[in-house]
Amino acid sequence: MPTFQFLPFSALLGTLGLLCVVFTGFWSQHWRGGFAWDGSTKMFNWHPVFMVTGMLVLYGAAVLVYRVPSSWAGPKLPWKLLHAALTLAAFVLVVLGLVAVFGFHNAQGTPNMYSLHSWLGLAAVLFFSCQWLMGFAAFLLPWSPAWLRIIYKPIHVFFGSIILALAMAASISGINEKLFFSLTNKTVPYAKLPPEAWFANSLGMLILVFGLLVLWALAMPAWKRPESESLEARQPLLH
Amino acid sequence: MPTFQFLPFSALLGTLGLLCVVFTGFWSQHWRGGFAWDGSTKMFNWHPVFMVTGMLVLYGAAVLVYRVPSSWAGPKLPWKLLHAALTLAAFVLVVLGLVAVFGFHNAQGTPNMYSLHSWLGLAAVLFFSCQWLMGFAAFLLPWSPAWLRIIYKPIHVFFGSIILALAMAASISGINEKLFFSLTNKTVPYAKLPPEAWFANSLGMLILVFGLLVLWALAMPAWKRPESESLEARQPLLH
Repeated sequence: MPTFQFLPFSALLGTLGLLCVVFTGFWSQHWRGGFAWDGSTKMFNWHPVFMVTGMLVLYGAAVLVYRVPSSWAGPKLPWKLLHAALTLAAFVLVVLGLVAVFGFHNAQGTPNMYSLHSWLGLAAVLFFSCQWLMGFAAFLLPWSPAWLRIIYKPIHVFFGSIILALAMAASISGINEKLFFSLTNKTVPYAKLPPEAWFANSLGMLILVFGLLVLWALAMPAWKRPESESLEARQPLLH
Repeated sequence: MPTFQFLPFSALLGTLGLLCVVFTGFWSQHWRGGFAWDGSTKMFNWHPVFMVTGMLVLYGAAVLVYRVPSSWAGPKLPWKLLHAALTLAAFVLVVLGLVAVFGFHNAQGTPNMYSLHSWLGLAAVLFFSCQWLMGFAAFLLPWSPAWLRIIYKPIHVFFGSIILALAMAASISGINEKLFFSLTNKTVPYAKLPPEAWFANSLGMLILVFGLLVLWALAMPAWKRPESESLEARQPLLH
């Protein structure tokens, strides 16, 4: 039954995730002047695109790997490697997203890391780094002891959802603050709700829906790998 | 075992929730000029206090009522009434919180409902209204049919978490935008991280931690009312 339910749900998630990326790119391209890597606001424009693509959409795909029913039978190692590769790709995009915003701030003489958005985002990235390193050390290194895998697995799963929630909170506060920065009295104020404000507000709502559906899919008991296989899952599979 | 675990956890949640309310009140009192009901920013100051108290803390307490182990035995009606009363009290605070911000905006000639923060908040409030009315109609009115309770219960439970997530996203984007509004070049800019910015950023992180812990407690399988009693729970208890 999960085969029948999970896969159409993933197709919906994939569509929503793709829409999040396309909307973010379109916002930057159509209203914010497009992209460059030169310290200008065009460099900043990579920040939302990389973050939404890496920290939300690719990350969302990576955390749902073990919910694919065909991952439950046969060797687990290929699925672990896929999970590690997708999260690593997400992490690379996140680092590029950080470089884009720090590069822009430094070129403009703007301070870094003062807003609540930036604190939430940094917390997400720091947790994500620890999560990846700990996951690699505990679940992929062949010499990691079984007791470590047993103790660490529920912690890893728990922080998987926490990191996504932090990323969602950072994205939403980031879109909100970017609109206050960009839509001022010099152009059309945010308060007049120009088309850009409608569009980016909708993007914020879309990101929230996408993230909540991923969290919900993660929490669905019927979509979890059956418990009977969990002992096998804890064995060092690179042996 | 859940008796032993859930109650200390609730004490922790209660402490964090109280801290959220105290921090919000202190922020408004100490840095934003205190409270009044006169269309000025002192009227606005009630908005975060009412919203954090009602839509997050009281709401958080209300949704965890059925996780109290002593609610699992004996008649369910007193617990239903407690749940309905707490959510109604939360809803009253939320309405006051809306009156505070709309009254302030209208007195100042500021448009309403343009920012992503306001869209998220309005979505939370609209869902919350429907949730309360539907819950009342399905679970408290004695003539509601059993099939309605059976169909609606998982939907009610699901939207209980969604509403809290919306409220969290609205709170965090609201704190972020309020700091950009208040901490400008005329005073000390947000980017210089004055003590108020440290304080309110920490409040935002605290709200996120509180909300995530409530969502986690809701999702914990061991803390859910045992399934064997679920048939009884679906019977019209006001008969």
